[in-house]
Amino acid sequence: MNRDAIGVFDSGMGGLTAVKALGEILPHENIIYFGDTARIPYGTRSRQTIQRYTQEDIAFLRRHPVKMIIAACGTVSSMLGADSPVDDMPFTGVVYPAAHAACAATKNGRVGIIGTPATVASGSYETAIHTIDPSVDVTAMACPLFVHLVEYGYTDPDDPITRLAAEEYLTPIREADVDTLILGCTHYPIIAPVIGQIMGEGVKLISASEEAAKYAKKCLEEQDLLTDSTERGHNVYYVSDSVSMFRDNARHFLADAVNGQVFSSRI
Amino acid sequence: MNRDAIGVFDSGMGGLTAVKALGEILPHENIIYFGDTARIPYGTRSRQTIQRYTQEDIAFLRRHPVKMIIAACGTVSSMLGADSPVDDMPFTGVVYPAAHAACAATKNGRVGIIGTPATVASGSYETAIHTIDPSVDVTAMACPLFVHLVEYGYTDPDDPITRLAAEEYLTPIREADVDTLILGCTHYPIIAPVIGQIMGEGVKLISASEEAAKYAKKCLEEQDLLTDSTERGHNVYYVSDSVSMFRDNARHFLADAVNGQVFSSRI
Repeated sequence: MNRDAIGVFDSGMGGLTAVKALGEILPHENIIYFGDTARIPYGTRSRQTIQRYTQEDIAFLRRHPVKMIIAACGTVSSMLGADSPVDDMPFTGVVYPAAHAACAATKNGRVGIIGTPATVASGSYETAIHTIDPSVDVTAMACPLFVHLVEYGYTDPDDPITRLAAEEYLTPIREADVDTLILGCTHYPIIAPVIGQIMGEGVKLISASEEAAKYAKKCLEEQDLLTDSTERGHNVYYVSDSVSMFRDNARHFLADAVNGQVFSSRI
Repeated sequence: MNRDAIGVFDSGMGGLTAVKALGEILPHENIIYFGDTARIPYGTRSRQTIQRYTQEDIAFLRRHPVKMIIAACGTVSSMLGADSPVDDMPFTGVVYPAAHAACAATKNGRVGIIGTPATVASGSYETAIHTIDPSVDVTAMACPLFVHLVEYGYTDPDDPITRLAAEEYLTPIREADVDTLILGCTHYPIIAPVIGQIMGEGVKLISASEEAAKYAKKCLEEQDLLTDSTERGHNVYYVSDSVSMFRDNARHFLADAVNGQVFSSRI
């Protein structure tokens, strides 16, 4: 048993979809979130720059009492692959949990993946899926505009720009006849309705954020690190850009106002 | 007379449109460029963060032999307003040169401005225009997706996503019956064809990049700081993210391959 917090980080706000999922399945846990809003996006930067930012984000979280770290960012998780950047506490990215869920969900053996350019170029989800089941056929597509469409609030299912971008990005995935699609970036659950409409009812959407939260629960259970508190957990948020911008935008991701204190911290 | 370089900086690649204009009107000058590609975009960040990044960018350029600094970034120029962040050499942003050009160009006294959210929220172009001519009627519109559409290469005049975004952003400007439109972000000249098509032939487009280059020439002439070299000037480029990504994308902005050495430098 351990009352320390779960540390969660992301390039910006996308990781809040994982915070929301954690709040639902582990309501008594405390969460410390770091969003690198002064340097978002990560997904269009080089491997070296993403690795440097990742190290800095993890170092920031480790200055707080955390018992597990979640990289709630598809891009960071993809750069890390199967490696854990910490050796003294549990860690997960979003890639392996989502890959496991996709392999369990597909019936026709065809899985689609959408993510940032860095995520797709890394081949991380394919590698993870083929480690689990080499027979699964994978079709991946980079969606560079999605992060920005979500961050700027173009999230209405009827928004014509988001719909047009989604149709362009998803056509090759639809043509590959997948029955399962991994939302490989933690921003994407926010536009899951439009993605779902374009893919059709027969396609199961796997949220990398939700799967990471479920995997975190399993990890903490196995290592006897769940809190013994029966109170609602406390969330504390840190961002590298301004607090007010974070508060304004966070409600899109949490589907609610921010439930905790928010601080701005240079990194 | 002075053979030191002109220092130019931007959040990323947009400032290359100013480098291109400088190369045309001051072909013998050397240029040192800094593009903060590891932290682009600036235009959706808070005022404090943009100010901090600006100070760091200027400090970087000042470590090199420069005789003038150009903030070839609409967002940075807007945060600075009429202030110069250096007191020992000429400096210009893109706002005042573009405002002067727009006031000279308009016949019906109605000017449109498009820029990043930070630029438009600052009211910088309106302030500059009304300092020059208080009677000019100004309509401004933030275009948050444009930077990303340009950076990701959605620059074909027939690209349906760029066209749809441009139609959405430009409708209020068109309805205001402007005869002059300032492209208030140095990325926008790259999609000037689609902007021009939507605005119609009667509307003059003012490129903030080109006007800054013209103003730089005037400044250097007045202060007797032009080079006496008759050779083609040398350009050196520094970026905060990877060199290869810069080389791949720079040709969209320069309409040519990069004509100089490129280095990656952490900031």
